[in-house]
Amino acid sequence: MTKIGIGIIGGGYMGKAHAVAMLSVGAIFNTSLRPHLEMVAATSIETAENYRQAYGFARATDDWRTLINDPAVEAVIIATPQNTHREMAEAALKLGKPVLCEKPIADSLEDARAMVDMAEAAGVANMMGFNYIRTPASQYARQLLAEGAIGQVTWFRGEHAEDFQADPNLPHNWRCSGIANGNMGDLAPHPINAALALMGPIEKVMADVECVHKERPGGTVTNDDHAQIMCRFANGVMGHIYSSRLATGRKMGYAYEIHGTKGAIAFDQEDQNALFLYRAEGPEAERGFKKILAGPAHPDYLPFCQGPGHGTGYQDTVIIEAKDFLEAIATGKAIWPTFRDGLAVAEVVDAVHKSSETGRWVSVVQV
Amino acid sequence: MTKIGIGIIGGGYMGKAHAVAMLSVGAIFNTSLRPHLEMVAATSIETAENYRQAYGFARATDDWRTLINDPAVEAVIIATPQNTHREMAEAALKLGKPVLCEKPIADSLEDARAMVDMAEAAGVANMMGFNYIRTPASQYARQLLAEGAIGQVTWFRGEHAEDFQADPNLPHNWRCSGIANGNMGDLAPHPINAALALMGPIEKVMADVECVHKERPGGTVTNDDHAQIMCRFANGVMGHIYSSRLATGRKMGYAYEIHGTKGAIAFDQEDQNALFLYRAEGPEAERGFKKILAGPAHPDYLPFCQGPGHGTGYQDTVIIEAKDFLEAIATGKAIWPTFRDGLAVAEVVDAVHKSSETGRWVSVVQV
Amino acid sequence: MTKIGIGIIGGGYMGKAHAVAMLSVGAIFNTSLRPHLEMVAATSIETAENYRQAYGFARATDDWRTLINDPAVEAVIIATPQNTHREMAEAALKLGKPVLCEKPIADSLEDARAMVDMAEAAGVANMMGFNYIRTPASQYARQLLAEGAIGQVTWFRGEHAEDFQADPNLPHNWRCSGIANGNMGDLAPHPINAALALMGPIEKVMADVECVHKERPGGTVTNDDHAQIMCRFANGVMGHIYSSRLATGRKMGYAYEIHGTKGAIAFDQEDQNALFLYRAEGPEAERGFKKILAGPAHPDYLPFCQGPGHGTGYQDTVIIEAKDFLEAIATGKAIWPTFRDGLAVAEVVDAVHKSSETGRWVSVVQV
Amino acid sequence: MTKIGIGIIGGGYMGKAHAVAMLSVGAIFNTSLRPHLEMVAATSIETAENYRQAYGFARATDDWRTLINDPAVEAVIIATPQNTHREMAEAALKLGKPVLCEKPIADSLEDARAMVDMAEAAGVANMMGFNYIRTPASQYARQLLAEGAIGQVTWFRGEHAEDFQADPNLPHNWRCSGIANGNMGDLAPHPINAALALMGPIEKVMADVECVHKERPGGTVTNDDHAQIMCRFANGVMGHIYSSRLATGRKMGYAYEIHGTKGAIAFDQEDQNALFLYRAEGPEAERGFKKILAGPAHPDYLPFCQGPGHGTGYQDTVIIEAKDFLEAIATGKAIWPTFRDGLAVAEVVDAVHKSSETGRWVSVVQV
Repeated sequence: MTKIGIGIIGGGYMGKAHAVAMLSVGAIFNTSLRPHLEMVAATSIETAENYRQAYGFARATDDWRTLINDPAVEAVIIATPQNTHREMAEAALKLGKPVLCEKPIADSLEDARAMVDMAEAAGVANMMGFNYIRTPASQYARQLLAEGAIGQVTWFRGEHAEDFQADPNLPHNWRCSGIANGNMGDLAPHPINAALALMGPIEKVMADVECVHKERPGGTVTNDDHAQIMCRFANGVMGHIYSSRLATGRKMGYAYEIHGTKGAIAFDQEDQNALFLYRAEGPEAERGFKKILAGPAHPDYLPFCQGPGHGTGYQDTVIIEAKDFLEAIATGKAIWPTFRDGLAVAEVVDAVHKSSETGRWVSVVQV
Repeated sequence: MTKIGIGIIGGGYMGKAHAVAMLSVGAIFNTSLRPHLEMVAATSIETAENYRQAYGFARATDDWRTLINDPAVEAVIIATPQNTHREMAEAALKLGKPVLCEKPIADSLEDARAMVDMAEAAGVANMMGFNYIRTPASQYARQLLAEGAIGQVTWFRGEHAEDFQADPNLPHNWRCSGIANGNMGDLAPHPINAALALMGPIEKVMADVECVHKERPGGTVTNDDHAQIMCRFANGVMGHIYSSRLATGRKMGYAYEIHGTKGAIAFDQEDQNALFLYRAEGPEAERGFKKILAGPAHPDYLPFCQGPGHGTGYQDTVIIEAKDFLEAIATGKAIWPTFRDGLAVAEVVDAVHKSSETGRWVSVVQV
Repeated sequence: MTKIGIGIIGGGYMGKAHAVAMLSVGAIFNTSLRPHLEMVAATSIETAENYRQAYGFARATDDWRTLINDPAVEAVIIATPQNTHREMAEAALKLGKPVLCEKPIADSLEDARAMVDMAEAAGVANMMGFNYIRTPASQYARQLLAEGAIGQVTWFRGEHAEDFQADPNLPHNWRCSGIANGNMGDLAPHPINAALALMGPIEKVMADVECVHKERPGGTVTNDDHAQIMCRFANGVMGHIYSSRLATGRKMGYAYEIHGTKGAIAFDQEDQNALFLYRAEGPEAERGFKKILAGPAHPDYLPFCQGPGHGTGYQDTVIIEAKDFLEAIATGKAIWPTFRDGLAVAEVVDAVHKSSETGRWVSVVQV
Repeated sequence: MTKIGIGIIGGGYMGKAHAVAMLSVGAIFNTSLRPHLEMVAATSIETAENYRQAYGFARATDDWRTLINDPAVEAVIIATPQNTHREMAEAALKLGKPVLCEKPIADSLEDARAMVDMAEAAGVANMMGFNYIRTPASQYARQLLAEGAIGQVTWFRGEHAEDFQADPNLPHNWRCSGIANGNMGDLAPHPINAALALMGPIEKVMADVECVHKERPGGTVTNDDHAQIMCRFANGVMGHIYSSRLATGRKMGYAYEIHGTKGAIAFDQEDQNALFLYRAEGPEAERGFKKILAGPAHPDYLPFCQGPGHGTGYQDTVIIEAKDFLEAIATGKAIWPTFRDGLAVAEVVDAVHKSSETGRWVSVVQV
């Protein structure tokens, strides 16, 4: 086992999750690389110091460049807003340091492409923080689809629906401006990433992006609240993706339902330890959706618990991500989702905006 | 109580359901009009006679005009393919006889409009057989929406997904040709009707209609297998409707989910006695979707059973329909859904085809 | 097809259900015997006349003996309180008329046994009105168990939980006195009947019967509110049965869960069209409870609807019962559950009371 | 923040879970005491060394006394079979070191009582490892019950059902002998602890304890497979507890359902992030069980995630336990469940065995 110094830029929601993940991933997965919380960076030294103490980092800084340049920091996690991702990733990659970057990849397609180019030129581990898809249940769904368990797929429906902006009386806040803070920047990348992971590339989209609550106490909202996307995948399959921050009652509506000629798969992250599988086989009288509880027979479950159905949670998906990141570093092999996969999501997001503006089908350009 | 002679044209799936409904509706709802199964018509006299005996009609005929013209037949139920609806309805309405007509209303918008005109000119009871929306749960959902229980609605998603054509090896059959026998003719009218009932008129649609299994053993399929529709309602709300006969595992996926600023409603007819309601009120810690079991407090439930949660079934929705038809006849008041409501569905279906062909948003023209 | 005159004694909750069933059973199941609602009896002529008009009987009477003795009444349905069952059944059986009797069979074991003896001596169709067990899902569960689908059974848990007396402020009413109106008389027979149907005879019981709300506005409650029963079946399997009228939130909690060495079965009548089946076979990763929707592949479903998952309801279970009663009459064969099966339930109820009084295990004596 | 050296005896299933918990609890809960994995003990030095490396302990030993006596070990976690608990706890408590002990507390009531006496005399933090009850959902259920949210409770049903010994062909293994390794020693303490936590003390029990699969390939089974317990709580409420290792299909069937005069609560750990709550208030038409997703408004959720419904998992319950243990140490206040609470469970288990042997109700003696 080898120690590896971790630097995390940002210590909020996701920064904390990554810190916790790095503290426990070694013991859980018996990883060959053992992370050490070397340094945390925040926008002020007071905040950074608070993070340091709370999460147990060795050092704190208010300058992310200091963190990246520190020789003890051997891998960098970027958990800051996406308009900062490019230059941070660039700085780390130039030094040959592996980077785990929160989603979405960047503010613009141009930045996203630049990041992919740099990462691939650097030849070091680069990964996007799409942790939702890493539940044992969703990993198993991917595996089933890859094996053709449900035959030829004929329909995909995905969504990510939450309700944190559903109340029109909620005052104007940071989520209400900046395209990246809107639904398409914040939530939509999750189900789009799920769609790509489960179904492969998207060929074209026809979308409707809307801001429903345009005025809030304290200001005008300048980004979108929810969006729906009709799509066709490269394999010809018809699909639909919906993302919303207005979906009253939905707290973690990261869900999908996929039908094929021989079966169907359904998942809803509000009950993240269950996968629903239907196989069109055996006597009609016995057919039905099976509720499969995640257990040791499913990917990445056993290290958390020997008992099936005992369940993993949100934080565990970040720990699984940490394990993969460490493995990518240790083995030198790219592990999904890389920056290139983050770019693929960004390309869909871009096409969605264009489609909604023109009211036309728009091809997803992959460069 | 007054006896009323009923004639039913067609004795298959729906003809039987209507016959059974007419036999029991009086006892269940204590209706003022008491139906008598006067005559059944089928395409051959043997079939008609079989229906007569099986369901208990007084007489049988192989000529639907005989049925309509018979003085003892005081109300007519049309349960035949939609290409026959117009002339049958015309014949009955000319004689001033009330008509209950199975969905979809007709083969073409022209026929549908003609039927509406005739029915309204005749001034007699005319009704479409959209029975799914008549479950106590869905009636209650309509009532909640009408009362504004979930505030300003922001999103509607409806679907009707079944899997009877999901197997690509299923031989070519009568469902595989004729636009009316395809998914858009057969299944889509149900969720479109639900959308109109719950949300009001649809302003425009953007659709993707597809035949996935184009070749089947025995022939080429010339109508559609599934379709998705993005829409905007006249009230501005964004919506999505999906209908499919390929949805492996789904047997009665007549479902909807509606979000508003103050709550949400969800329903799936595979568990037709439950309605899910979320109200964004009270302490956060206690919020959640309520599973409300249909009971005597909900529309049209009590006549079936005094015990809540004891449940109604498919046949009961047709009995509720029969009750409403009899009431429309007895009171002379139009009861939803009339032919005009059937036309509204047909107008959406028409716009969907146009949109899918052109890849553009298409306005739903209401004449 | 032969007409058969039906007389129903009692026109309340169950009397109505039987009348409706007799009106539609012929058309639904294409029965050889076709019921005619000949006469209804009630305690006053006004009430009887109301029932007659509402349900469509030919005649009404306030004297049940008149009904039984009427030559046009060829089969008798007893839907009155159980203290009247014995003499009514006796009168009908003496005339060789088939009897369908509501549950529970009688007020005392002595009466129940007398009824069984009379019925078996008369050699005519005799049946108990346990309609809940006749859902297609529960019939299928019985079939699966009979086939050994879940291997050697190791545990049975059944319950019937409703909440109609849960509020302690509910005034004293007819349910509050008379052992037959208590939970053990009214509700418990249902899950006990289910236990016998699914598992076979019960050998011994250890029970706790309780009246929780002893005082209600207007009077003292002298029967029980809820009861739990530990039992051992004749096949040695351990079981538990709970019945309650205090189970706040439960509306139709007629439910069971059965585990065996090779699988498990679960059912809850609040979603009566689903049966949950687990088979301990195939790869671990794919195991889970299947939610099987009732459909044409299950017993007695198809006559109600050709579409799977479209659902049957409460009234339909009474119609299925009517079909079986008519078949028992037509064929002369005893169809489960006969009076003897009703007696078996009464014997368990009797042992339960004895056990609760003594705090000891009590054998179920079968005479 | 103060560092505290942790020693863990045992590194298997639970030992690992505690090690992981101690690694991350500080960062998650921002605890004042910050654990350091000082030493791990196992039965051989090789095993201990493996644990040390895998989980990141500073040192390893094959002598648990060495661990307890080591001055750097300031708190001890006992994760070994229960026949070892007493002497280990004794050794640690004598040195005034806090002890977190896995369930069940000990092999005998005598040992359990001795442990309680020692712990209370020592006056240091002592805690039992009942982690299941620490999900945010179950903590919230306890809170609701304590507040009287469902009125006067009338019924409690709890169970813990798994299926790891359901296959009769599973060879004889360590679980098949030793009363502590049987269902009553291993599984039953969980639902009994839940019953006590939610309902208060149990007054008397009437139980049926059984070994179903008495012979397995390789040997005779000498402990129990499943058991059911009828009970009366000290508050007079009737209850039932079932525990089983034969419950085919159930993977984490730690579940309870509680009815009261004003509402009901239901929980099943197979979907551990949901609590079902029914309140008998508001219009009948709107009543139903609410599915409440655990979120920041519920106990101990927020430190894991800011998003409601995002979910916690099995490992997180052990982390919550670690937080409470550290807090008990830091504050000197006893935090539930202490050794005394572990004894209360053991007293019920003891009474259950006595009742099953005698077939009589047995009082739970609390000394």
